[in-house]
Amino acid sequence: MVERIGIVGGGQLGQMLTEAARPLGFQVTVLEAAPNCPATHAGARQIDGNIKDPDAIRELAGQVDVVTWEVEHIGARTLCELEELGFNVEPSPFSLLKIMDKYRQKSELRLAGLPVAPMVDLSSLPAWKTNSELAEDAREALGGAVILKKRTDGFDGRKNHVYTGDLVVANEALGSDWGDVYAERIIDFDKELSVVLGRDIAGNIAMYPTVETVHKDSICHTVVAPADISPKVALRTEEIAHEAMKIFHGAGIFAIEMFLRGDEVMINEIAPRVHNSGHHTIEANVTSQFEQHIRAITGMRLGPVGMRAPAAAMINILGTRDEPLAREGLDRVLALPDTHPHFYGKAPRPARKVGHITVLGASREEVSERANLARRELSI
Amino acid sequence: MVERIGIVGGGQLGQMLTEAARPLGFQVTVLEAAPNCPATHAGARQIDGNIKDPDAIRELAGQVDVVTWEVEHIGARTLCELEELGFNVEPSPFSLLKIMDKYRQKSELRLAGLPVAPMVDLSSLPAWKTNSELAEDAREALGGAVILKKRTDGFDGRKNHVYTGDLVVANEALGSDWGDVYAERIIDFDKELSVVLGRDIAGNIAMYPTVETVHKDSICHTVVAPADISPKVALRTEEIAHEAMKIFHGAGIFAIEMFLRGDEVMINEIAPRVHNSGHHTIEANVTSQFEQHIRAITGMRLGPVGMRAPAAAMINILGTRDEPLAREGLDRVLALPDTHPHFYGKAPRPARKVGHITVLGASREEVSERANLARRELSI
Repeated sequence: MVERIGIVGGGQLGQMLTEAARPLGFQVTVLEAAPNCPATHAGARQIDGNIKDPDAIRELAGQVDVVTWEVEHIGARTLCELEELGFNVEPSPFSLLKIMDKYRQKSELRLAGLPVAPMVDLSSLPAWKTNSELAEDAREALGGAVILKKRTDGFDGRKNHVYTGDLVVANEALGSDWGDVYAERIIDFDKELSVVLGRDIAGNIAMYPTVETVHKDSICHTVVAPADISPKVALRTEEIAHEAMKIFHGAGIFAIEMFLRGDEVMINEIAPRVHNSGHHTIEANVTSQFEQHIRAITGMRLGPVGMRAPAAAMINILGTRDEPLAREGLDRVLALPDTHPHFYGKAPRPARKVGHITVLGASREEVSERANLARRELSI
Repeated sequence: MVERIGIVGGGQLGQMLTEAARPLGFQVTVLEAAPNCPATHAGARQIDGNIKDPDAIRELAGQVDVVTWEVEHIGARTLCELEELGFNVEPSPFSLLKIMDKYRQKSELRLAGLPVAPMVDLSSLPAWKTNSELAEDAREALGGAVILKKRTDGFDGRKNHVYTGDLVVANEALGSDWGDVYAERIIDFDKELSVVLGRDIAGNIAMYPTVETVHKDSICHTVVAPADISPKVALRTEEIAHEAMKIFHGAGIFAIEMFLRGDEVMINEIAPRVHNSGHHTIEANVTSQFEQHIRAITGMRLGPVGMRAPAAAMINILGTRDEPLAREGLDRVLALPDTHPHFYGKAPRPARKVGHITVLGASREEVSERANLARRELSI
């Protein structure tokens, strides 16, 4: 029976996984290079090491009964080797390999007949062309404005660049070596949606209600649950999520981020892990995404995903400068009804996620308004 | 502004206080003699020391911005000295002094006109009398069956003895020195009730709905919220709780345990701390008793205490033997709707609280039944 859980990465996601695992009697060990990482604040043991270092990952695997992760940009090949050696790794690290390479991820989705944005792999274009020629070819091929993305290592908008014709800026964002850059048609969406779901060892899937996400500067800013969409669109998001899950294997939480334009739903990106668009489930749903992931990877049954309130909103707290966040506003935040701040204990740096606030209430309008009010109370 | 919280005691109550404090950005340090105590599993720092040791308590106070406690049987006089020296201690340690001595606690309540069981202080009886004569005098004076109690250091029924006339057994339970023993008339109650409330620095009080508690062998076995009582009785329990709080000072969670016989409500005992009869508030109420205590002692406003479901039940998990608890049943427990196990990470010993399970549902009957079912699934 699984008693010890190993997590590659010890940030806030590892912290909230630890908070969910400990009351169920599990011991958590995280692999993280940064000393005194957030997960340890919640009682996890830490192995100091790089999340891409094969030896460090093997050391973690040797100390636990199941290995999972909280970030994509890790030593996935090492995890694949470990799984083939008989180690218990969830979800399947082979799915992680597919997902880490965004171009491959979307190619697989397109092959499965799932709707994704039109793309061009720049490395498939004539090698003798210059970067600017490649970008122009891509714009022409995709018939409109394009975003250039590194196939790997991009997150929260890093390693992405909306191409405006200025090559200097593009090279600054992506580096001048475009060997692993691909171009994606920019989707002019009405809304961004996300489906967070859990899948157990037996393959059963439990989906949380589809949520609407709002990004600012490519970083998740707010989440509102449930999304304000027609039953037809809601059904479509669930169908797409179910179809997408056939390509990726193993147990755990997955998040499928989507674009909505009119009634048309398109997959933006898939994350094989607990996700920022599911943080509200800690208070707003019967089973949180974090407990659900722990249940799934330890071979247990999934929990109920229903909401405890008609509506919930989550707003991220981002570091603004190299000063600690003003905490004077905390009392005013806590004076608001059904409002729940979560600080991760991270030193604030610009655009760094240092916490989030979840609010529950009677309507989307009410919770969105209150979430924004709460966030403002915490600003310096 | 308070940033660092010190707790005297690091058991499961300190653990759940730490779980509530950390996401709000507070650092927690506990004073506990037992190494690797439950609170440290949730990320608290530990000072190794006896909870009655003046030096250890002073060391804790020197490292934090506010001192509180999770158990009564601690160095209260030292805390009083510290408060007089200007240290921030909540709630008032002078109230703790009153409460630690059960005879004094109830004398104060009686003086305030509050209903308590009839008592006799055996030390007030002629000193030349033998223990058996003292016990018989008490029975006569109280006109019925009596329970003999040590004035201090008793909890979970320890240091209590239902006197049956067998002096040998009585001395075994209490020790032959009866200098601090008092006799209480045994109340033939219909139900045991508990009111858990929070009081902030300004004196505002927020009461959780009155719950019914069921004890087995003097240890809390189950809690059902809200209690199945008439509006009149509910109002009476709240009136009594409000009155009782005038005797005890300072901010934090208090629990007022009561007996109900017919429509008559009587105070059994008061605890100046987070309490076993409030564990269900973690899932069942908008603000848990643990967060409420943290809000109160750090000078913040109290949170809403409303329930998230029509009914909730909490059942304790007690160690049965010196073997670890069977965890095979966990998956079956988690398969039950809205059922939430909490393991404290303590080595199971007979009658030792090693965890609890909270269930939410539509009716008292449903949640009580499901809580008992869940508990059975975990048994060896």
